[in-house]
Amino acid sequence: MAAAAEIDLVIIGSGPGGYVAAIRASQLGQKVAIVERESLGGICLNWGCIPTKALLKSGEKFESLSHLKEYGLSATGASFDFEAIIARSRGVAATMSKGIAFLMKKHKVEVVEGSARLEKGTAAPKVIVDLKAGGSRTIEAKAVMLAVGARARTLPQIGLEADGDKIWAYREALSPKRLPKSFVVIGSGAIGLEFASFYRALGSEVTVVEAVDRIMPVEDEEVSKAAQKAFEKRGIKFRVGAKVTKVSKAGQGVQVAVEVGGKAETLEAEVCISAVGITANTDGIGLEALGVAMDRGHITIDGHCQTNVKGLYAIGDCAGAPWLAHKASHEGIHAAEHIAAFKTPNVHSPIAGCTYTQPQVASVGLTEQAAKAQGREIKVGRFPFRVNGKAVAAGETEGFVKTIFDAKTGALIGAHMIGHEVTEMIQGYVTAITMEATEEDMHGIVYPHPTMSEAMHEAQLDAYGRVLHI
Amino acid sequence: MAAAAEIDLVIIGSGPGGYVAAIRASQLGQKVAIVERESLGGICLNWGCIPTKALLKSGEKFESLSHLKEYGLSATGASFDFEAIIARSRGVAATMSKGIAFLMKKHKVEVVEGSARLEKGTAAPKVIVDLKAGGSRTIEAKAVMLAVGARARTLPQIGLEADGDKIWAYREALSPKRLPKSFVVIGSGAIGLEFASFYRALGSEVTVVEAVDRIMPVEDEEVSKAAQKAFEKRGIKFRVGAKVTKVSKAGQGVQVAVEVGGKAETLEAEVCISAVGITANTDGIGLEALGVAMDRGHITIDGHCQTNVKGLYAIGDCAGAPWLAHKASHEGIHAAEHIAAFKTPNVHSPIAGCTYTQPQVASVGLTEQAAKAQGREIKVGRFPFRVNGKAVAAGETEGFVKTIFDAKTGALIGAHMIGHEVTEMIQGYVTAITMEATEEDMHGIVYPHPTMSEAMHEAQLDAYGRVLHI
Repeated sequence: MAAAAEIDLVIIGSGPGGYVAAIRASQLGQKVAIVERESLGGICLNWGCIPTKALLKSGEKFESLSHLKEYGLSATGASFDFEAIIARSRGVAATMSKGIAFLMKKHKVEVVEGSARLEKGTAAPKVIVDLKAGGSRTIEAKAVMLAVGARARTLPQIGLEADGDKIWAYREALSPKRLPKSFVVIGSGAIGLEFASFYRALGSEVTVVEAVDRIMPVEDEEVSKAAQKAFEKRGIKFRVGAKVTKVSKAGQGVQVAVEVGGKAETLEAEVCISAVGITANTDGIGLEALGVAMDRGHITIDGHCQTNVKGLYAIGDCAGAPWLAHKASHEGIHAAEHIAAFKTPNVHSPIAGCTYTQPQVASVGLTEQAAKAQGREIKVGRFPFRVNGKAVAAGETEGFVKTIFDAKTGALIGAHMIGHEVTEMIQGYVTAITMEATEEDMHGIVYPHPTMSEAMHEAQLDAYGRVLHI
Repeated sequence: MAAAAEIDLVIIGSGPGGYVAAIRASQLGQKVAIVERESLGGICLNWGCIPTKALLKSGEKFESLSHLKEYGLSATGASFDFEAIIARSRGVAATMSKGIAFLMKKHKVEVVEGSARLEKGTAAPKVIVDLKAGGSRTIEAKAVMLAVGARARTLPQIGLEADGDKIWAYREALSPKRLPKSFVVIGSGAIGLEFASFYRALGSEVTVVEAVDRIMPVEDEEVSKAAQKAFEKRGIKFRVGAKVTKVSKAGQGVQVAVEVGGKAETLEAEVCISAVGITANTDGIGLEALGVAMDRGHITIDGHCQTNVKGLYAIGDCAGAPWLAHKASHEGIHAAEHIAAFKTPNVHSPIAGCTYTQPQVASVGLTEQAAKAQGREIKVGRFPFRVNGKAVAAGETEGFVKTIFDAKTGALIGAHMIGHEVTEMIQGYVTAITMEATEEDMHGIVYPHPTMSEAMHEAQLDAYGRVLHI
């Protein structure tokens, strides 16, 4: 057993934020241990971002088989093997998790399998790990980083708690034993809609319930509207402004009681998927005893991801919104550099959000509503893919791009996209906002032809009355 | 008939450079006439960028039907209707061309159908149009913009001239009356390879001949190599370093005599596609008589697209490389603004290049070879899609990203991509180079997870020994 003093940094949790921090710290000469209680890669790799994308790709490919004629093609007997689709998704997750094991080895990061809790220490809190293999181990290091993530929120008071049979959260929805004929999905954020999109593509009846008066409440209102229309075209049903009052198992399925506009309604389905948000995994690890400052269930951190406790850092989901893997990784890198006394350059990138439904949604910066709420004078531009040459040639004309500029400074402050593969395009806007690009800069950027990304250029031009193709 | 004096600007040629210049000039208050001898939208819309993308999408979708099992899907009797594929492509081109007619009307740009030539004028050369409808019309304006484009280069001395039957150039390859069983494609640039890719996807035997010692000679060497390997995997054959000495029609097809490494060889196929570059359409419009300065077949222009003749501008293909529609549009906009005395902001965007084969190729800035030839000290980073989570989930693991930084300044000076849909990603690098991003900026940009664009981030990190996932 290695002497505890040899370790510089203990990271608790091996999701993207945690393992990336481990790699970066190791690159900077730190000796790192990472504690994982379940599977390397955390929820994201094993039960989140990655396996859902595998499912969605199968769903998307299956759906595209109904559109072959538009491209001069044909095939008969289109069908799917549900077990094979799920097995592929689990295989992709396993491959990625193995990849993390390889990376930890390569970077000489010690992987400690077990559940960690903290106790008062000297340079930083002590980490006590209840080892999977039995027994426990105490590690003292110069710094401890909490990357403990989050889990699906439950609402037991209304019966919304996954039971692995009729009520599913993301785990059950990712590794189902059967393909239900009908679903009620509670929550219209990225997670709820991605499952709705996948199961609908395979032919299930899907109704999505959203408490707020529009779906995708974090997105720009115009995107919400267009998204709902696009999903409805594919047969997904919606109840917005709908408060769920009770989820009950009944006979072969579930009943979801909702109140919409003061009227009670009961939705029935074989399975209910709960996607009502997440709860940070901050319980049972000794934070209260250490006096770690919290804010509404999340750990409070400063600009370097430091908590109020000496030597204790927190990153990712457990440290607050947005609950996105790339935000976690970014914080992990920053915290690792801070711990290793590496001066992170003064670059400020916004955090984009992506939803991998059909069509996809991607956005970064302020929505029009948020910009107005801040009292900003803004210029707004829009461009639909239906008049973009590449989109027409590819038969992918759904959706649009919307850009928001600060009228006074000319700075790009928000960009919103809905359409085919926009999740791969949004990085251009992330780059522009990070580089503090103004409308003049954006007008001068030469987007290659013919690409759907030209719609980005047009939306920028449109904000200033210079749109070309409409 | 309108008095000639009313027109401020005559644009000759309605390809993307020309019609976009017309729109921009109109936005700036100019009265514009545009002369087109064939179809609005020029070669790009009617016989180039747009219809090829339609064909390639059909080919790509057809090819994907052989990979359904990997996604847990199946279908039988995959087939295509060649005529329907071609008809779809022609329909897409017609739709886009109609769109340009609408835009010209909306912006009050007068469309003059006919062939133009120039004669000495006062403020600018006179434009004499031999009208399609018969007769001619002379227009005098403050400025004239040549956007006359280019056509396929022919090599009659070796028999390489399209005959519409056994020897095709892009027009014949875009509107064929039959699907040949075999092709020899001469030229491995974007045009040659896109046709090779499309016809191979439909099952034809394809051999590509390239005079230089590697395919895609303008791309980075590593990309050339990877591309050749990827295309060979799909069954395309190559002869590189091969000089074509004679193309002869013989019996049911063609014979292409080549010399490879001093050895003579004869390639046989049903059809030969000529894609050996382009020739600017600078003949027969009176440029010699006006004394317009030329350089190796192209019109010489200054930083504002002005020729040496007063009031005469030239943009796009006829004014030199790179022969890309977005370069033409960019020049068209700039020239229109100069003519309207609008001060174009001082923004310098590089021009990206895109090839829509499977996999796609996209690049911007310097290749490693070009950077070294300039004597620059460089840092090079690479990242393969095979370890990118989204690529694994989507089953699109072919290819990589390569970035090149100037070691002294840290500036990003080149980016090269090969892989699925990289043509939609390259705009992020165009944005970064336009904004003069350095390695520090690039390291700080938060690419959303899970996307293939994260490979861009990793390639940047790799150049500085900071790569995370390999």
